[in-house]
Amino acid sequence: MAPLRMPVLRGSPCLALGAPQPGLRARPGRGAAVVRAAKTADGPSVAIAGVTGAVGQEFLRVLKERDFPYSKLKPLASARSAGKHVQFDGQDIVVEELTADSFKDVDIALFSAGGSITKKFAQAAIDSNCMIVDNSSAFRMTDGVPLIIPEVNGEDMAGYKVGKGGIIANPNCSTIIALMAVTPLHKAAGVERMVISTYQAASGAGQAAMDELVLQMREFLDGKEVTKEIFPLQYAFNLFSHNSPITDTGYNEEEMKMVKETHKIWKDPDVKVTATCIRVPVMRAHAESINLQLKNPLTESEARAALNSSPGVSIIDDRENNRFPTPLDATSRDDVYVGRVRRDISRGDDKGLDLFVCGDQIKKGAALNAVQIAELLL
Amino acid sequence: MAPLRMPVLRGSPCLALGAPQPGLRARPGRGAAVVRAAKTADGPSVAIAGVTGAVGQEFLRVLKERDFPYSKLKPLASARSAGKHVQFDGQDIVVEELTADSFKDVDIALFSAGGSITKKFAQAAIDSNCMIVDNSSAFRMTDGVPLIIPEVNGEDMAGYKVGKGGIIANPNCSTIIALMAVTPLHKAAGVERMVISTYQAASGAGQAAMDELVLQMREFLDGKEVTKEIFPLQYAFNLFSHNSPITDTGYNEEEMKMVKETHKIWKDPDVKVTATCIRVPVMRAHAESINLQLKNPLTESEARAALNSSPGVSIIDDRENNRFPTPLDATSRDDVYVGRVRRDISRGDDKGLDLFVCGDQIKKGAALNAVQIAELLL
Repeated sequence: MAPLRMPVLRGSPCLALGAPQPGLRARPGRGAAVVRAAKTADGPSVAIAGVTGAVGQEFLRVLKERDFPYSKLKPLASARSAGKHVQFDGQDIVVEELTADSFKDVDIALFSAGGSITKKFAQAAIDSNCMIVDNSSAFRMTDGVPLIIPEVNGEDMAGYKVGKGGIIANPNCSTIIALMAVTPLHKAAGVERMVISTYQAASGAGQAAMDELVLQMREFLDGKEVTKEIFPLQYAFNLFSHNSPITDTGYNEEEMKMVKETHKIWKDPDVKVTATCIRVPVMRAHAESINLQLKNPLTESEARAALNSSPGVSIIDDRENNRFPTPLDATSRDDVYVGRVRRDISRGDDKGLDLFVCGDQIKKGAALNAVQIAELLL
Repeated sequence: MAPLRMPVLRGSPCLALGAPQPGLRARPGRGAAVVRAAKTADGPSVAIAGVTGAVGQEFLRVLKERDFPYSKLKPLASARSAGKHVQFDGQDIVVEELTADSFKDVDIALFSAGGSITKKFAQAAIDSNCMIVDNSSAFRMTDGVPLIIPEVNGEDMAGYKVGKGGIIANPNCSTIIALMAVTPLHKAAGVERMVISTYQAASGAGQAAMDELVLQMREFLDGKEVTKEIFPLQYAFNLFSHNSPITDTGYNEEEMKMVKETHKIWKDPDVKVTATCIRVPVMRAHAESINLQLKNPLTESEARAALNSSPGVSIIDDRENNRFPTPLDATSRDDVYVGRVRRDISRGDDKGLDLFVCGDQIKKGAALNAVQIAELLL
């Protein structure tokens, strides 16, 4: 692969295809902008790279659900999938092969085709004054590339607008879900250290992993040997350490993403994070058990108040009825759900909290967050 | 229920039915004694209270597997199950109704019939000079009742022998599995604080919960509504906070057991423990993600050496092949499996470690540990 020129913000501030109308942005600045429009000649031209994958399909659903304004939608995929059809907003659209020429008439490209594809085509897209919102890890830690959760650090993409070429990175799903819940508490009392254990869904490994989990369940219940093509271990009625490679720290790459992306998003390289990432036999929502050590005291009710006033966060914390967030509560929902909010009994003060968090891996963990970023580009 | 007299050690040091032969104890003192004998006139008379449950059935398997010496085996259950037959050691034995008279000719009673049953019948058994090994939480925290993991604190039941009446408590399954892995490290470097997140199997809620999980999986895959009789929430392809009641600390009872039982077993009320207990759709082995804060430095290789020399602990920690413990590795096995042993990256020193641990909930978490305690009574 040819070395990539630095994917920094470049290009003209105005776009021939038509700048978006300011009125389309319901909430300017930080926070999840709610855009109401759909197909309009004034909207940006939008491409989806990797449209046939689980996240690619979710991009289509989320764009429609949020009535994202667009003048044209261009579904892109590998040569293998080119020629397939996708249904979007009442239209039947043919999938085109993703090439360096794909971005000539595109304002915003939502990428979810793997890091190597982003690396291969990013420069061509930038050179075409296309804004990439990339769901891969390819550029997340690159200096100058904003790593954005709109509700958390939307201000870090100030100046990124359609009409210019650039890349904005979507954080890792586990990071997004953790920081949606923890950032309000961080702002209230300062997080010094986080100990996170994840319960990650099959969807994080794509549609094929979800399909294999269902297949394995059927095979197991029929007394057959289970098919192991996606993961080397049985997944049905089992769980295992996240399948990403182990780094020289002994942490796997998924865990290191949680550490490093938190530092970047919070602009605080000193916050201490340790994570243990585990895959559980759940379809598409992640759960996370989070222990927080705080710089300043924060009571349970202050913590709940901070969470309660945060966009994109819902509390399910009914102790009497033992009702707390589950992956099924979060499935196909926009919000991250938080519960089991309690004072850390291992400490003698109000500087520790335990939480349990659930969020849809494909939605807020990927497609929704990317579309929210795209909304901030308008 | 009538108030129970204090279940302390009492009775004569010698038993009419025949004291066990000292030679039967392969390893005296601390550690899991390995007994080789099976049916013998010199062996103790053994009762199993709650024989028809998941743990009761496992008691039978473990007693046979370990050739536990016995002169007579008496299966006991509620009136509803009395008259059923159990197969044990080549014999067909009729289940008797559990009553206050059941223990007149019994030396050792393994109880797994729920705390209320233990409370109801404990005094009658003690008055009959019967040694109870109780799998319920009824007496775990009672002063004077040893709470024993043989490999960890077998010495705390010194003086408890067949021929006397008394109660020894089996710790909670999650506590046993955690402390099997952590105690060697505690002995090596002193644990100051533990942050535990569990991934608990259906078996902890009994055979009915395991059956319902399988039923729900079938229903879900057939597109039917799932049956929710044991748990109020869908369990198939889902997970949820442990169903035990929430205490006034905000922690559920399962979590508080881990805190309090650790204090008692380690005889250290100052060790700091916080836990988040979650049920996952796995059949019979628990997993636990454990973060340790140590008093003294301990390198990864020192930690592995300490684990490696501990009876009942096996290491699966192959970073290159991404192969670490899973619940299926631990299923129906005696050992607790430990992996992901790594220096806590959130600290700047060697005083932090992360681990991932799996152990069979029914076996080491319940029946095996109880039978190992019974072996120490001989």
